[in-house]
Order: sequence, then C-alpha cells, then structure tokens
Amino acid sequence: MTLEAIRYRTGSLQILNQLLLPHQTVYDDVRSVQDAYEAIKSMKVRGAPAIAIVGCLSLAVELRAGAGGDDPVTFIRESLCHLTSARPTAVNMGRAARELMEFAENESMEKNSEQLRESVIAWIEDMLERDVNDNRKIGNYGAQHILSGVPRDSVTILTHCNTGSLATAGYGTALGVVRSLHALGRLKRVYCTETRPYNQGSRLTAYEMVSEGIPATLITDSMAALTMREMDITAVVVGADRVVANGDTANKVGTYQLAIAAKHHGIPFYVAAPSTSCDLSLESGRDIIIEVRPPEELTSINGVPIAAPGIEVWNPAFDVTPHQLITGGIITELGVFLPSELQAALTGRLTAL
Amino acid sequence: MTLEAIRYRTGSLQILNQLLLPHQTVYDDVRSVQDAYEAIKSMKVRGAPAIAIVGCLSLAVELRAGAGGDDPVTFIRESLCHLTSARPTAVNMGRAARELMEFAENESMEKNSEQLRESVIAWIEDMLERDVNDNRKIGNYGAQHILSGVPRDSVTILTHCNTGSLATAGYGTALGVVRSLHALGRLKRVYCTETRPYNQGSRLTAYEMVSEGIPATLITDSMAALTMREMDITAVVVGADRVVANGDTANKVGTYQLAIAAKHHGIPFYVAAPSTSCDLSLESGRDIIIEVRPPEELTSINGVPIAAPGIEVWNPAFDVTPHQLITGGIITELGVFLPSELQAALTGRLTAL
Repeated sequence: MTLEAIRYRTGSLQILNQLLLPHQTVYDDVRSVQDAYEAIKSMKVRGAPAIAIVGCLSLAVELRAGAGGDDPVTFIRESLCHLTSARPTAVNMGRAARELMEFAENESMEKNSEQLRESVIAWIEDMLERDVNDNRKIGNYGAQHILSGVPRDSVTILTHCNTGSLATAGYGTALGVVRSLHALGRLKRVYCTETRPYNQGSRLTAYEMVSEGIPATLITDSMAALTMREMDITAVVVGADRVVANGDTANKVGTYQLAIAAKHHGIPFYVAAPSTSCDLSLESGRDIIIEVRPPEELTSINGVPIAAPGIEVWNPAFDVTPHQLITGGIITELGVFLPSELQAALTGRLTAL
Repeated sequence: MTLEAIRYRTGSLQILNQLLLPHQTVYDDVRSVQDAYEAIKSMKVRGAPAIAIVGCLSLAVELRAGAGGDDPVTFIRESLCHLTSARPTAVNMGRAARELMEFAENESMEKNSEQLRESVIAWIEDMLERDVNDNRKIGNYGAQHILSGVPRDSVTILTHCNTGSLATAGYGTALGVVRSLHALGRLKRVYCTETRPYNQGSRLTAYEMVSEGIPATLITDSMAALTMREMDITAVVVGADRVVANGDTANKVGTYQLAIAAKHHGIPFYVAAPSTSCDLSLESGRDIIIEVRPPEELTSINGVPIAAPGIEVWNPAFDVTPHQLITGGIITELGVFLPSELQAALTGRLTAL
C-alpha cells in the first residue's frame, strides 16, 4: 500500500499531520483555505511541493462549496495571497499562485461564476495529478537507468533526507526511484541517513518505508562512507531543492559529503528532481545563497538540550554539490540527463510548453 | 584553566561525573576500588585510558590507607581482577593490570608490606604522570607539525568525537593538539562534529572547549565536507582506538568519511595516538573486527524515541581508515610519522623499553 500524505476527493481534503510523526498517524480535515494556512504555518504539512498542493486543494474544496459567490476571482486572489504568506520562502506555492491567478483571470472573461469555479477546480485537480505523475515518471526513469547497469541483480540504494510522499504531492522524487525499484521487485534494500539536524531520515523516510514494507535500514550520516564500502551500494540517489543551469545542485546539507564519498567508491550518484526544481536563470551553484538556520536545531531535540551550553554552532541547511560529482545523472520527468545535457533537455521542453 | 576530569592528590581521588555532563559539573569522591568499579560500570568515567587510570588510582587510595594489611599482593590481585571485570572490553585496564601485577609480585620478593604499598603507589602515580606527559608530547609534536606548513598564520582544525581530558588521563590526544595550538596562540578555531549517535562531540568536546575558552564551533557530522570547503580548514585531527602495523586506523565511526572528504579537499589528515594504542600484531585494518552496537543509540535520545518505530538500524561503533588517507601523519609521543614509518619508529621504542 502506498502511503497517502494527502487524501483528496472532490470536495474533501485530509492531510497526514506530520507534527505527530513518526509516533502517531493522524489525518486532519482541511475544510477551508484558513485550515490549510494554519496547517502550513504550523508545519503539519511541509516540503515545498506538498505545501503548494495542499494550499491549492483547500481552495478547490471551498470553491466546490460555492465560495466566492458572484465574484470568485476576488475570492481566489485573496485566498492565494493568504496561502502564499504562510511560508513565504516556499517557492512552489508562489509559482502555483501566479499561474493559477493568470488562468482564473483569463477564464473569467468568458465564463460565469459557476463555470469559472468548475474550471479552476479542474486546473487544481490536474496540478495534483500532474505532480504525482511526474514523480512516477522520475521513479521509473531512475529505476530503469540504475538497473541498466546491473541487468539481473537486485540493487541496494543509499538516500538522504526525505523526498517521498511526505514532501511531495505523492510518490516522491528520490524515494520515488526507490518505490519504483521495489515495485519492480529489484530493490534489495535502501539505506537511509538520519539526516541531522532535523532528522527527516529517521522520522519521515523511515516512517514511509516501514509503512509500505520496503526493506530499509537507518544509519547515521557519519556511517554513509562505511556503508558504501561494506554494503555493496549500487547507487546513491538524493533529491534537490534547486538544480541550476550547469547541473550544480543545492540540497539538504550532507549531500555534498555523500557525493564525495560516492565518487571515492566509484558508486554512481544521482539527483532526482522535477523540471520545476531546475532554475536555468542561475549559471552555477556559486550563485546559490546557503540558508543558515538557528543553533537550537543542533543543541536540542524536542526542546530538550543535548549539547554543552555556550557552544557556538554553524547550521547551514543546504549545501551545493558541484555537477562533476553527479556521476549517475539528473533524473527528471523527461528522462535522465548528464549535468552537461540538462540545459538543452529542459530548454526544448520549456519551449514546447 | 585546564579542565580536570580526574582530581588526584596522594590519598584522595575525585572524578568528574560524565553522566551529568554537559548540564551539571559534579565531582564524585572515589574512596575505594569498589567506588571506582561502580563509576566505570555506570560510565561516570569512560574512555579506555581514563578507565585504566581511575581504576589504578582507586587502588592507590586504598593502599595509602593501609589496605591489604600483611598481604597486600593478594589485595592488589583481587582488586585488579574486580576492576578489569567492570568493562572487560576496555583493553587499557587489562594491560595496566597485567603490568602492575607483575611489578607488585617482583617487589614483594624484597620488600615488606609497607614498602610494597609505597612502591605500588609510586608506580601508579608515575602511570598517571606518564600518560599526561605523553599526551602533552603528542599535543606539541602535532602542533609543530601542523604549524610547519603555515609559518605565520593561525590555523583552523576540524576534529571528531571526544579525545580530550574526559577520555584520557588528561590533556587529550587529538584535543591535546588543539590545546597546544591554542596555548601557542596559533589556534583560530576548532570545528567539532557532534559525533552521532552517542554525541561525544556535542556533549563532551563542546563542554571541554567552552570550559577552557577555546574558540570552537559545533557542526553536524554531515556538514564536515562543507566546512572543509567554506571554512579554510588547515588540518583534520582525530584520535584512534587502534592503529595497526601498516597505519590503518580504527576510530569512532565517521572518521573514514572525514578522511575521504579531507583528501578530496587536499587537507592533511592526522591521527593522534599514544604508542600504547598501536597494535603491531595486526598487519592491516582488514583484521580489525568492527563492534556493532544496539539500535537504540540511533532511535532514541535520553530514552525518548526519535525515529519511526519498526525501522531496522545498522550501528557500527567504529570504522577503519586506510593508511593511504592518513596524509598528514600519525602523531605519537615519539614524534609524527607517516603510516609507512610507524612500524620502524615504534619497534625501536618497544625494544628500548
């Protein structure tokens, strides 16, 4: 059974409350845009793609109940503004809001209120479906690429952070590749780093793997190189927060170190990311600013102090992996590309859109 | 002021209770061999060298008060047996017990009970002094070697786990190098990994650095490579649980990964270890068996669960760094040697003993 982090049927929406994970599995109703705003703000839902999907779906739920009356465009605009303000750094919500607003304004020229509501709901439902489908394509392309190197054997994957159903509209990116390998009966095991300091690996990825019965082993971040040497790792697959034009990739801190260790062991290193995470406006990773987060993420867990008081802390949330270390390729919904091929591959697609 | 983990004056012994660190600084009296046994068993004191020193010093305290009466040899034998059984895997206590017993038996042939007690106490006090002096020599040799590459500048060091006053008789091995650099006014900063899963870096190393006002920054293990790239690291210095004949080194898990990252960045990688940690009976690191510890070290902190229930865990406590990656050298109390020079250097010394 596939873990459902977002349960949507026309007119109703529930989300898996991630604040209670991994110890309790509770779905909360999202009946309104305000419910979604609060869920995003309090981090019941997290992960940039998931935030955008939940925000837009909450709007669809209200529109289905007739919200906006005779002036749905104003209601849609105010709702999207409000949703975007919940976590302003999550780019996907902002991008979805701009695209949806443009669509709604165009539609409003030819359609009455009821028709407009219907077409906006359809646009949002299509967005949900497209995201999950893109992730499935990423999963299948990645699995085929990895398996092309090992025609008969089962494979062992090492991954980092959480890139699964809990961070996306569903299925996941790097974890989507793991799911596809498992579905093909070709996954021997996945090793998940705990991903300090926020423990997305031990809390969320481990939860997803246990939920679906995918064979998985948790290790500390410091054990990754030893695992590569001892456990016959076929490939390392990670997600991306942003891939720039030359293929340099910003992702959860620790990714760079994994890429160095993979290179040292001759293990292919893959980045799995939808084309919407690729940002061709930046030439190289040097232009990416690394977010530095509060020391408390290292010095306490659940509010309990775990480090010596008074110690200084450096807590960068991301690092940039240079394209030279992405030896396996970049897995997108369009196929798997070498970093040097990415720009051409995406430009063709972007023109076609 | 140097942090004192072991406070010994003839006839009295106190230890810093490491179970209460880093949140409380409490010294516990050790008045007897039984007190020491309990302190070792409960991990109030940890680190193989520190265990041996505390065990032997507790014996010295009892002997000073006249323990053993007319038959001190029997008392010494029974005490050493008891102390060795507290944590049988800590090799240093066993080694010290064998050496001390041999010494006591020889002395007993020519001396009366009172004279025997005095000479055994002197042997133990000499052991304490020798251990601290060896660590100071390691600190100074290491500091000079690192500084020889950077004639004028201050240096930035990256270290792993805890190898300081809290793990040794005092001063420390890798942290001894850091202390020496600081004493010379040439240490800009030391970066300490938190060292999952047991957090020796965030709890103990951070505590030592804050206590002594040595400029230090805590990072997660996953940030080490990024720190090497961004923070102008001069050298990586770690301790060792065992160095074998060809220079391969077993140390806290994560060391191997640091060595790979240091090589990738062209940063010299040093192992600091007294000659007593060198084991020439093993040819290469392939012969070292890696201890695998309980899953709970990863899945909970202070008894509070932090990972998804049901997830499998691999928790190797150590890894082996091949000698090729020890590019700076192995720092001993005899000097700094390349892995290829170690055997010859130590064999001369061992013959001279």
